Amino acid sequence: MAGDKTKNIMHYDTVNLDDEKNALVIIDQTQLPGRVEILHLTELEDIFEAIYLLKVRGAPAIGVAAAIGVYLTAKKIKQENFDAFYAEFKKAKDRLAASRPTAVNLFWALDRMEKVVLDNKDKPVEQIKKLLHDEAVEIREEDIRVCRAIGEYGLTLIKDGDGILTHCNAGQLATVKYGTALAPIHLGVEKGMNFKVFTDETRPLLQGARLSAFELHSNGVDTTVICDNMASQVMKNGWVQAIFVGCDRVAANGDVCNKIGTSAVAILAKHYGIPFYVCAPTSTIDMEIAHGDDIPIEERPPHEVTEMWYKERMAPKGVKVYNPAFDVSENQLVTAIITEFGIVRAPYAEGLKEIFRKKAEAAGK
Amino acid sequence: MAGDKTKNIMHYDTVNLDDEKNALVIIDQTQLPGRVEILHLTELEDIFEAIYLLKVRGAPAIGVAAAIGVYLTAKKIKQENFDAFYAEFKKAKDRLAASRPTAVNLFWALDRMEKVVLDNKDKPVEQIKKLLHDEAVEIREEDIRVCRAIGEYGLTLIKDGDGILTHCNAGQLATVKYGTALAPIHLGVEKGMNFKVFTDETRPLLQGARLSAFELHSNGVDTTVICDNMASQVMKNGWVQAIFVGCDRVAANGDVCNKIGTSAVAILAKHYGIPFYVCAPTSTIDMEIAHGDDIPIEERPPHEVTEMWYKERMAPKGVKVYNPAFDVSENQLVTAIITEFGIVRAPYAEGLKEIFRKKAEAAGK
Repeated sequence: MAGDKTKNIMHYDTVNLDDEKNALVIIDQTQLPGRVEILHLTELEDIFEAIYLLKVRGAPAIGVAAAIGVYLTAKKIKQENFDAFYAEFKKAKDRLAASRPTAVNLFWALDRMEKVVLDNKDKPVEQIKKLLHDEAVEIREEDIRVCRAIGEYGLTLIKDGDGILTHCNAGQLATVKYGTALAPIHLGVEKGMNFKVFTDETRPLLQGARLSAFELHSNGVDTTVICDNMASQVMKNGWVQAIFVGCDRVAANGDVCNKIGTSAVAILAKHYGIPFYVCAPTSTIDMEIAHGDDIPIEERPPHEVTEMWYKERMAPKGVKVYNPAFDVSENQLVTAIITEFGIVRAPYAEGLKEIFRKKAEAAGK
Repeated sequence: MAGDKTKNIMHYDTVNLDDEKNALVIIDQTQLPGRVEILHLTELEDIFEAIYLLKVRGAPAIGVAAAIGVYLTAKKIKQENFDAFYAEFKKAKDRLAASRPTAVNLFWALDRMEKVVLDNKDKPVEQIKKLLHDEAVEIREEDIRVCRAIGEYGLTLIKDGDGILTHCNAGQLATVKYGTALAPIHLGVEKGMNFKVFTDETRPLLQGARLSAFELHSNGVDTTVICDNMASQVMKNGWVQAIFVGCDRVAANGDVCNKIGTSAVAILAKHYGIPFYVCAPTSTIDMEIAHGDDIPIEERPPHEVTEMWYKERMAPKGVKVYNPAFDVSENQLVTAIITEFGIVRAPYAEGLKEIFRKKAEAAGK
C-alpha cells in the first residue's frame, strides 16, 4: 500500500562509499519520511551541500560522510607533486569542515584523514590516495563496530516482546548502521526478536516521528508514534519495559546531555520504575566536564516552535518562545550508560574511568 | 506591530447575550490565534454550527452558549399556546443537544432551561420567555462567579512576580470570563500584579500555543510558549513557582483527569518540588467515581498527531499512532484542588466531601 515509501532503509547503510562509481552514497534525510531518495554524490560541492542542508545528519554519520567526501575529492587531484597535492587536499578539507561549524565528529574525521596525508608525505601521491581510501573505509567500519557493540550490550538488558520507548533519533539514520539507542532493537530484529517500540515525536524538529519511526517501521518493527506529552500515559499503561536514548555529551559524573525532553522521559521513568538507559559511544563521553550543569544548552530560533512545518503560525504574534535544543538528565535518573566497551552503572565517576581504561587497553593491543 | 491580532480579548467575555440584537455573541476560536472574529449569531442553525465546529469550546462556555441559544430560539416562537410552544422549544433543545454529544455541561444547561419551561407551564408564554432569558443570564453569571471565586482562592497561593506554568487551555476562552486555571492570573493582573507564564503548547491540538498564549498575551501577561517536552528544563531553570491546570473530571479520591500530558507535568513538578494546583469547579468533581483509573480515557484519531496543521504528513505511512486525549494525575501528585468553595488538600476523600457540604449549605441559603 505504502509502495516505495516502505523501502527498507536497513538495506542501505546511511553512509556508504561506492568504489565503482567513486561516489558517496547517502539517504536524503530531508525527504523522509515521505520519500526514500538515495543520492550518489561525486562532487565536493554536492557533498558540502548534503552536510550543510542536513541531507546527512547525526554526528557519526556526518564524520563518515566527510571522510569519504575528502577521499573522493583527493582521488581526483591531478598533481603528482606532494606539496601541490597537499595544497589541493587542504582546500577540500577546509571546505568540508565549514559545512557544519559545530560538529565535533566532522573535524575529528577530517583531521584523521589529513594525518594520513601528512604521515605519508614521502610516499607517492597514488599510494597516499590508496591510504586515504582505506582510512575512510576504516572510519566508516569503526562506526559500525561501535554501534554494533552498543547494540549487543543493550540487547542483554531486554527480552523478546518488550515494550521500548525512545526519544529523538539516535538510530541508523544518525550513524552508518544500527545507530546507538536503536542498535539493541535493530540487532534484536536481526536475531528474530520482536519489540513494541514507542517513539516520542520529539518537538519541535520531530526527529522521532519523521526519522526513528521511519527507520523502525521500515525494518518491520511494531512502531507507535506518540506526542511527547503522552509518554507518561504509555508508561502508566504498563507498555514500556525499558527506555533507550542516545546522547550528545556525557559528563564525567554521568550527567547526560541529550535532545530536549530527554530529562522529562528520565524523570517519568523513575516515577514509574522503568529502567532508563543511555547509549553513549565513548566519543560522546567528555571526562573534562565534571558536571552536566557545565554543559552549555544551545537555544534555537522561535520559528521552529511556532511556524516550522505548519500551514500557518500556531501562536499569537509577539509572544515569547523558549526553544532549548538539549537538556541534562541528572546521573541519579540514569539506570545505566551503555558504551562500546561495556555497561556502566552508578557510581558513574568511577565506572566511566574504568571504560576509558578498557578503551586505552584495546587501543594498545 | 501585531495590529488587530492583539485586540485584548479580555474586553470581550467569551460568551455573551446581546439583548438589543437578540444575538449570541462569541469569539470564533477556530480563527485564533491569527484573527479575532466576534460573531453575532441569531439563528438556531448558526448556533448549532458554532458549537459543532468548536467556534465556541470548553465545557462551561458550551453550556452557556447553548442556554443562550435555546432562549433566543424560544423567543422567536410564535405560538401562544403552551403545548405548541413547548413542542417547538423541545425541537430547538434537542437540536442543540446534538451539537456535541458528550459535553456534560451542554445537557445540564439545556435541562435547566427546559425545567424553567415545565415549571412554569401555567404562565403565559410571554412570561416563560422572560424567565428563560433570566435563566440563561443566571447560568452565564454563575459561571463568572465560579471562575472568579476559583481565581480569588488561587491568587492566595502565589505572589507578584511568580513564574507560573500551565498546560492546555483552561482559561477565559473555555468559560465566560477568567477561566479556571488561568483565573488567578487574570484576576491578579486586574489587581496590578505581574506574572511570568509558561504555556505548554499542548500537542496535538495546540490549545496552549493557540489559545492560552493568545488570551494571556492579549491581556498583557509576560507569556512564553514552550513545547511540552521543554517543561522539565523550564522547571530546572528555577523559572516556575507554581503550576495551575484545569481538569475534565476529578474522582472522589482526588485523582485528576485532564488533558493529555498533565500527569507528566505533575510528575515533573513533584521531582522539582514545585506545587501543582488543579482548578476544579465543583461541577467537574464526580463523587460517584471512586478512583481515577475508573475514568475512561478517550482515544482520538491518528491524523491529529501525524497530519493536522502540517503542510505534509510528518510520520511514515502505516505506522501506528496512540492518541489519548486525557490522562490521570494520581492524587499524591496534586498539591491542592482549588474549587469555588475553597482549597482542598490531602486527604482528598474527606476534603472533597467537605466542599460539597459547603456547596449544599450555600444552596440552602
